[in-house]
Parts: sequence; C-alpha cells; structure tokens
Amino acid sequence: MSAAEEELEQTGPARVSLLFSPAGREFRVPPDVSVFDAASWNGIAIDSTCGGHGTCRKCKVQLTAGTSPVTPSDERAFTPEELAGGWRLACLVRTVTDLEITVPPLVTRPKAATVGVGRQVILRPGVQKRYLELTEPTLADQRTDLVRVLDAIDDLEPTPDLHVLRRLPTVLREADYKVTAVVVDETLIDVEAGDTTGRRFAIAYDLGTTTVVATLLDLGTGTPVAVSSVLNQQQPYGGDVISRISATMMDPEAAGRLRELAHATLRDLAQEVCLEGGVAPEEVYQVALAGNATMTALVLGVDPEPLGVAPFVMSTAGWPPVPAAELGLTLHPGARATLFPALGAYVGGDVVAGMLASGMDRDSRVRLFIDVGTNCEIALADGERIVATAAPAGPAFEGGSIRCGMRAAEGAVEVVRLTPDGQAEDAVALEVIGDVEPRGLCGSGLVDAVAELVRVRLMDASGRFVTEEAAAEIAPALADRLSTVGLERVFVLHRPAPDARPEDGVYLSQRDVRELQFAKAAISTGWSLLLEELGLAEGDVQQVLLAGSFGSYLSASSAVRIGLVPKLPVLRVVSAGNVAGEGAKMVLLSSRERAGADALLEEVRYVELSDRPDFNDAFVERLPFPV
Amino acid sequence: MSAAEEELEQTGPARVSLLFSPAGREFRVPPDVSVFDAASWNGIAIDSTCGGHGTCRKCKVQLTAGTSPVTPSDERAFTPEELAGGWRLACLVRTVTDLEITVPPLVTRPKAATVGVGRQVILRPGVQKRYLELTEPTLADQRTDLVRVLDAIDDLEPTPDLHVLRRLPTVLREADYKVTAVVVDETLIDVEAGDTTGRRFAIAYDLGTTTVVATLLDLGTGTPVAVSSVLNQQQPYGGDVISRISATMMDPEAAGRLRELAHATLRDLAQEVCLEGGVAPEEVYQVALAGNATMTALVLGVDPEPLGVAPFVMSTAGWPPVPAAELGLTLHPGARATLFPALGAYVGGDVVAGMLASGMDRDSRVRLFIDVGTNCEIALADGERIVATAAPAGPAFEGGSIRCGMRAAEGAVEVVRLTPDGQAEDAVALEVIGDVEPRGLCGSGLVDAVAELVRVRLMDASGRFVTEEAAAEIAPALADRLSTVGLERVFVLHRPAPDARPEDGVYLSQRDVRELQFAKAAISTGWSLLLEELGLAEGDVQQVLLAGSFGSYLSASSAVRIGLVPKLPVLRVVSAGNVAGEGAKMVLLSSRERAGADALLEEVRYVELSDRPDFNDAFVERLPFPV
Repeated sequence: MSAAEEELEQTGPARVSLLFSPAGREFRVPPDVSVFDAASWNGIAIDSTCGGHGTCRKCKVQLTAGTSPVTPSDERAFTPEELAGGWRLACLVRTVTDLEITVPPLVTRPKAATVGVGRQVILRPGVQKRYLELTEPTLADQRTDLVRVLDAIDDLEPTPDLHVLRRLPTVLREADYKVTAVVVDETLIDVEAGDTTGRRFAIAYDLGTTTVVATLLDLGTGTPVAVSSVLNQQQPYGGDVISRISATMMDPEAAGRLRELAHATLRDLAQEVCLEGGVAPEEVYQVALAGNATMTALVLGVDPEPLGVAPFVMSTAGWPPVPAAELGLTLHPGARATLFPALGAYVGGDVVAGMLASGMDRDSRVRLFIDVGTNCEIALADGERIVATAAPAGPAFEGGSIRCGMRAAEGAVEVVRLTPDGQAEDAVALEVIGDVEPRGLCGSGLVDAVAELVRVRLMDASGRFVTEEAAAEIAPALADRLSTVGLERVFVLHRPAPDARPEDGVYLSQRDVRELQFAKAAISTGWSLLLEELGLAEGDVQQVLLAGSFGSYLSASSAVRIGLVPKLPVLRVVSAGNVAGEGAKMVLLSSRERAGADALLEEVRYVELSDRPDFNDAFVERLPFPV
Repeated sequence: MSAAEEELEQTGPARVSLLFSPAGREFRVPPDVSVFDAASWNGIAIDSTCGGHGTCRKCKVQLTAGTSPVTPSDERAFTPEELAGGWRLACLVRTVTDLEITVPPLVTRPKAATVGVGRQVILRPGVQKRYLELTEPTLADQRTDLVRVLDAIDDLEPTPDLHVLRRLPTVLREADYKVTAVVVDETLIDVEAGDTTGRRFAIAYDLGTTTVVATLLDLGTGTPVAVSSVLNQQQPYGGDVISRISATMMDPEAAGRLRELAHATLRDLAQEVCLEGGVAPEEVYQVALAGNATMTALVLGVDPEPLGVAPFVMSTAGWPPVPAAELGLTLHPGARATLFPALGAYVGGDVVAGMLASGMDRDSRVRLFIDVGTNCEIALADGERIVATAAPAGPAFEGGSIRCGMRAAEGAVEVVRLTPDGQAEDAVALEVIGDVEPRGLCGSGLVDAVAELVRVRLMDASGRFVTEEAAAEIAPALADRLSTVGLERVFVLHRPAPDARPEDGVYLSQRDVRELQFAKAAISTGWSLLLEELGLAEGDVQQVLLAGSFGSYLSASSAVRIGLVPKLPVLRVVSAGNVAGEGAKMVLLSSRERAGADALLEEVRYVELSDRPDFNDAFVERLPFPV
C-alpha cells in the first residue's frame, strides 16, 4: 500500500455538512478545509483581519452541533467557559464532521479580506467614494461644476463620463453642494446627494456553462452581502459549449437568443442578490465576470464559431471594460464590467480567474491546477514559469454520456464505498445528495465507483470487469452485483427492490467505464505533457488544486486512485472550490489583483495539445488505471 | 473725412454674387475676399496644395461671366489664350463684381486644406484606414483575431472598442482575411471587408441657436462633399438661448423635448448631406460639433438652468468624446463626436471653434474677434495673450425687437444707401435678399439704415431723428420719408405704393434705433474693456473679424460708422464667415488642430463683465453714434 493510499484509508472520501446561523444556510464541503475558508467560499462573512491565518483571533464562532479540538490559539482567545460552550477560532476548525456554526455579527471592518485559496487581499477597490462639502459659486468664482468637484478631491484625479456631466448641475444645486463623488478606476461616474460613502457595492459573476453564481460584495468591508446561483438559462441550447456553438452555426437567430438568455440569467441574479442584500441596483458600481471563452463571447454577442473549429482562434484575449448594460444589467448607469481575459479558446477567463484566486503566479511550489469538466483546463507552475493547456475530457463528468449519469443534484450518488468481504447487504455504501433514494450517478460518484471497483479488483487495470467466476472468488459479497443490461456488462450500485432488474436501478456499465477512462486519459496526458514542457516529473508536483464545480466535489483519494491526478499523498490534493467566482471577487476588491489577472496573460504560456505528434501515444499510455 | 470713411466710399457696402459650375450653387459673399476662400467657406472644393497662398498654381478656375485682373502669378500659370478665356487662379481673384465660375474636377489630393479664415490645415485626420492582407490562422499560429490585425498595422497602436471585437471573427473570415482597419484617434473601431481606404468621411456641425449647418467632409482629400443648413427645430421654444432655458425651468418635459428636437435637426442634416454626397451613413466615422454652451447642454441632455441665472456656471468647460448616437445620429456604430469646449456660459464652443478657425492664437497682430448676435462674444488677442468676454447685445440683430425686423431671409432689406441731394425717387436704394419686394429689415439692413441716417445727418449722435424742418434743409430728397407711426417717429425705407401709409411699408422707428444703440453700446463696451485689460487703445487694433451668420453679412463700413467696431480702415474689418463651422471642419481634418482647440481653454482668460463696477459708466459713454 502506497503512502497516498494509507492516507486515503484514514481520511476517507466523505463530504461534510456545515450549517451556518443566523444565515440559515447549509453547505456540503470537502473534508479537511478550514471552516473560515468554507464560509468565505460560500459567502458567509466571518470577522477577520489576518485573513484566516490564526493570528488576529477575530474569527470567533460558536459550534452549536458537532465539535472540534481546542488548539493553543483557541486557549488564548477564549475562557474555559467559552471553550466548553463550543467557541472556536473559525480558521482553526477543520471540516472533519458535520457542524452547526453560529457566526457573530461583524465587529471590525477588515482592511484585508480573505478570498480565493487562502489568498489575503488588501482592500483597494476600483470603486472609491469621497464626501465633499463645496463652496457655492459666485460671480467671482465661476469655476465649472466639474472643476469645483475635482478641486475638492485631494487624492484622485478622475476624468468624468458623460453621465456625471449630465447630472452635475442638478445634483450639486439640489444637494446644496454637499455631495459624494463616485470614482470607478480613473473615471468620475457620479456625484450623489449627501454622504453616501458607506454604500458601495459590486457584483462578482462566475458565468459557467451550467451554473451561474453571483456574489454581491460590500466594497467598504470586503465582505459578501449575498450570494445566489442558478442554472444558465442557455441550457436549452445544449449542456456544453460545443452544442451552443453548433446552435449558432445552424440557426442565425441562435446567437442573439443565447446572448439574451445569458443577459437574463445575469439580470435575474443581480435582482436576487440586491434584494437579499438590501442594496439598490444603483448602488452597484462595478461588475466582474469570469467565464470560459465561449460563455464570454456569447454574453458579449461575439460570433463563437471560430472557438469551436480548428485552429480554435479567439476574437481577442482581453476585453476592454464594457458598460454593465452590455451584459443586460441595469445597475448604476456608469457601472462597468470587467471581463477576465482568456489564454486560449479552451483556457478561458474562468481559468485565469481561478489561477488568480489560487495564486498560481505567487507560490514557489510546483503546483498543478486542474479544472475538471467536459473541457478540462490544466495549468502547471513551478514558481517561475506557468504553462497551461486544455484537454478534451468529454461529457463523462457532467453525466452526459453515462448510462445512469446525472448532474450533482438531489438523488445523485456522489460517494461510493465497497466492502468486498463482509455481508452482501452492507457491501455497497452510497452517499446520495439530499439523502433520498438514489436516482443516478454524478461525476464524483462515477470516479468513486470506478476507483472502488479497481481497488477491490473487480475491475482490472485495463478497465474491464473481471469474469463472474473471478468476481465470486475475489469479492463474494459483491459478485451478484455484476450483471448485464442488454449485451453490456454492468455493476449494479443500487437496486430499488431485491428482485428489480438491473436496468431499473443505478448501475455502472462497461461503456461508462470507457468514457471515464478516456476522460482521465485526456486529463492525465494534459498534465504529463505540461510536466514534460517544464522538465519535471510526476513526483515533483507538490500540490494539486482541483477546481470547478465538479472538481470541488471530486474525492481526492478517488482522483489519485484512478490516475486523474499525479500520485501524491491525498492531503496534497486540495479541493479549491469555486475559484473562478473567487477570482472575480478579488478583482473587485483590489485594483492590484485586477492588474495581476491581466499580467497572467503575459506570464502564462499556452500549450496547444491538438497539434502535438506525441499526444496520441501519451494518451494510449495513460488509458489504464493504476493498480 | 477719416481714412476709414474714405476707404468706405471706395469699396461700398454691396454684397457680391458668385455662381459656381458645375455645382450649380450661388452664394452672396462679402466684397473683397478671394474666390478660393469664398468657395471653401461654402463647401465648393477647388484644387490646391498650398492652401490658397498663390504658390501652388493648382486652384485654376474659369470665369465664364464677370472678370478679374490678370496677376503676375496668373501670367505664369496660364497661356495668353487661357487668360483670354477667363482662366485665373482662384486664390487671386477678389470678389469685386458678380462672377460665374467653372471649377474643374479635382486632380490632386491635397496634403493640406484651406479652412477657416485663410488657415491652411495639414491633413492629419483622427480617422485613419489601413488595408491589410493577413495570413490565416493555423494550429501553429493561434494569434487572436485582434493581435493578427494589430500586428499588421505598422504605424498605429490603437486599442479596440467592443464593437470591433464583436465583428472581428465574422469579418475576417468572410473577407478571406483581406480587410481595412478603421482607427479613430487611438481606437480601432472597425475592420471592413476588402479595401475601403478610399472612403472615409466625417460631418462638421455648426449648431446655432437659429441655424444649424452640416458639412460632410471627405477626409482623404480634405474637401467638403456636401453642405446643408436648416433652422434649428428647437425654434418653437423661443428664438434665443434665454427663452429655451426658461422653457426648461417652467416645463419639466421641455428639456427632453428640446434634446429630441436638436437630435432630429442633426439627424435630418446628416441624412441630407449623406444623400447629396453619395456617402453611406456607416462611412461617417467622426463628427465635430460647435455650439454655444446652451445648445451644447441641451443637445447632450444637461440641465441648462445654471447657464441662465447668475453666477452663470457651466457643468463643465470640456466634454469627453461621446458616441455619435448620444447626439441622435445613426452613423458608423463606432463614430464618436467631438464637442468644442467653452470658455464661459456665454463664450461657448462656437466661439472657441471660431477662434481656432481665425487663428486667434497664432497671429502676432492685435486682433479683435466679434461674433455678433443676441449674445455677442468678443475676444482680443495681442499675439501673446487672449482675453474673451460676452456682451448681452439683445435681440436687435436677429430682428426680434425691431418693428419691421425679420431674419436674413427672402424679402429682407440687407443694404441701404441714401442719396440726400438727388431726386426723391432715387434717394433710397435698397438691396433685398432674393431681389423681391421688401418685406422687412434684417440686422445688416438695420445697421446700414442707421449708419446712413447718421452719415446724411438725418439722425444726430444721440440717435434722435432730426426735426422735420431740419430734415427739409439737410436732405430735401429724403425729408418726406420722416413720418410717424402711432406716436413714434419713423423713417420710411420702402412704400409699397406712392400713397401707402408708413405702417404698410418697411420703416425704421425711433425705438428700433434705441434697440440698436443699446446693442452696439454693449458690444463696444465689451471690446473697450477687453482693450483696457490688455492695456491697449482702440487704435492699436490691427484687424477686426466679424463672425457669426449675422457678422458675416454686416457691412464693415456701417459697423465702423455706428461704432460697433473700433474706428479702423474698413479693409481691416473682415467678414470671417461661418467660423464656428470652419473650426468644426478643422478639428476633423487635423488632430493637431483639435489639440489646439483644447489648448485655447488654457490660453484664453475669460473676463466676466456683469460684476464689473465700471461697466455701466462705459456703457453710457458708448451710447452715442460717432459723427
């Protein structure tokens, strides 16, 4: 047994449930992350000035169900009574068991916020406000309204947009020359009556092909005020980017319609988070959007066809800031949207946002970043250089081509655990989303099932189910699960009734295994070729970040076991969460981070796999499962 | 008799008519300007590379009716047969008599164009085109569409706007990578299929309170393609800026409606000049607009109220370039409009454009610039310094408060000549616009009439008609023209029939004279205080430029005679034509000139008259007419 497998045995692949009060929101998070990070990723604001590094002792929370060991820092931060009452520093509580957590209201206004994968961002938002009390004009002081305002702002030298020039005469006089100047980046976008400095907000969007997430940020405190996610309304045009591109090629109306649907999705989310956060849309002055190249093209009304056919060329890598109205949003009239640049047609703005959030450019370790999905984006950094590529993993992880496949929704099997030598009725343990009757198999369940079948040797390294005779010998308690549906061999994970036919339950077919095998071969070919590019070996990798909505819920141990990621101790395989959304938050909280995102375009070298002569050899070599 | 009066006797106040073929357009122009300038002001393109300075010998025209002396340059440029056939260099033909002029088609593409008051502008338009033949992308060359285009442009480094990024993928592929890049200032606004470098146009607008003029320019040659003018559709809201500002103060709907009317006016003109010039609206890439501060505020949707009440404060002096759509125009989607900055609430962008066109900042002479109108703008430059102010002249020049006043339209008396000692029937000679029965008196006719009455001593210096007894003695042929309408004394200029009552004809009343007197006193107070500011005397002025649609048609001699301008030899009083429109053309033809317009903001010192304690004294002192 390898070191990785030993660690795997100890930690197990289970997900942990966290219920936060008073927000009343529950999340399923990967094991062994900090409660502070888990809260932050999900938009629950916990007080902190050190950014979750265990030094400021401000991230006090109370565990009202479940417990966590008392650390020396906890002992310094709390009285024995408080410790007994469940009080802990959130940054030191690891997610090992289910927890219920009460979060006190914020008491400090942090100068820094923790976002991304443990990244601490010094607050320096592009949105700035200055309250001004101006002297009234006279015949002896006929300075224009604009000059009067600009003269009163000491530390910024913005240029006005047309909107503010239109409003200036009216607002200055109605507000008796007591106004708040609103500056976004270098632009004066408004003057508001009275002192509104306490109110400045922005929305960070993660525009996924499947799911779209919006986070409303209070730019004064750096904390999320409301988070919401919905399915991308473009779904009727297909589940993946290729189907949506195809739609635009076949139907001249489709591009316009897809754009409208993207706009409607973003608009609905904006309404929702503003309502939930008690924020007027006009108080939202900036937007950041991270999406893959196709989603970005579609939302802006750019023809995506060249992204879908060789040689896969983008209109542009970077985008100028666009009026938020160009995304269909009705926020502040001067609000502008920042769109993440893309490294290639299949290494889009979402990946750049993810790389920013995970600090791929600011770490001396050898780190591998994998955003797992239909298209799988991979980046490798060694502290000096960064290379990135895309691997066509196919729809296995979305459940698209899997017989019993489904999305990670209620009824999906997400964890599988096989016990080959016990009682038949306990031999298959499933975790199902929503704790209901299993309806299908989502991506993480698929990986788990295959990893377990390989582990208990009911499947050989080539990915073939063993014969029924061999099964009876190797795993007697599981042997009767091997069956057939039509002409195809299957492994039955769940039978609705003891005498139900295999096809009435949830099963894994031989072809499903092949789909997964192709996907994992494509992905591992991707990172192995990137390692080659930098002259590194698999063992040199010090950390693997699994990103994307799928990657976050993928079991690290199963990912190691099937060879999706390099063979590392499982603790070094980190579920990074929704890194694209985190990146989008970062650029809103800090202009410096936004410059960092643009700088990634220069720093990262894109490696195109599809014209490499050695790709096919490497791919075939990577098909077998490690045993 | 003074020197000025002597010169006046020689030149006379008559207007000259020029008929251009093959354009088939006729213009009435001030005497003693060059045919080249007169053509240029009115949008008739005559070949030239030197810009009308008599050196390039390219501005060959044929006089088919009327004649002009042969100059030494003409002798070098033409054969004796050609000279006999009426061929002349247009820049050397002065407008002394009516002429019919045949203009040959353009043979050279001038590197410079003559615009403004004899200003030669080196062509360097903000709109640039570059034809590119690009290599197609491959898997080995996955440069983005944008980078592919930018790499192929050697001499410019534009940044793209969203519109071009949207179109790039489609256009590049449809045009087989043979495209024309369209750059406006620093922005790449389009790529067009094929080679369109020969087609680039812009529209210069003079947005007057009364009249709006549009000139469609071919930016490749620097020549006007079509010119059109219409009444400002805002007219129903009042004839002057104060009535329009009042309308917005009394009716909350008025501002929006006035904006729409301004947009409709500009839009109609754009359609007209594009149609006439055979230019598609999408081939118009830039717009320049010169208007006074109120017109500019109204067209942009800025509340004009603070411009109308003390202390007369503007929203801003300068404007950022705005999308042409913000002016209601549907031209190229990336077209932007440049608006002239203003020096004060009553020294607007039209005056800055006029100062640019007349080179107020580039001449070592002491020059006085007067834009005559309801609001009269005055600037004085001495080669080093420029000061400017506004004088409230009132509506006399627009005919608004004059009994028989009317605009300079068909039927308006524009020239008056009195012969006091001849036959009664020849004693009053009138020039009437359109050569029809006189219907009223326009501004220039008003000034002429008063100047003539003072000259023949039927009016004394205080502006009072002499008694009937005195009249019979001084000017027997004119004495019966002195009459009364109601209780007011009048001078009858035109009687429709010998026995018609004075009120049935065209007459000048005592109150009309007072109106003019107040106007001229305000204007001359303005320039006399500016002279004082620079420590100069009236005699130091070397040139007076009379600008504005009214100023252009004002007789120089009459203006001198009533004291509207300093007492100078009449040849030094130059009708500058529509200088605002010329300035608008200049900034389109040359980015350097546009920078010059912005620089005027820094160079010119605005002098507010309304809070000067010495204004009223100076005003009273200036009421009498010089005799």
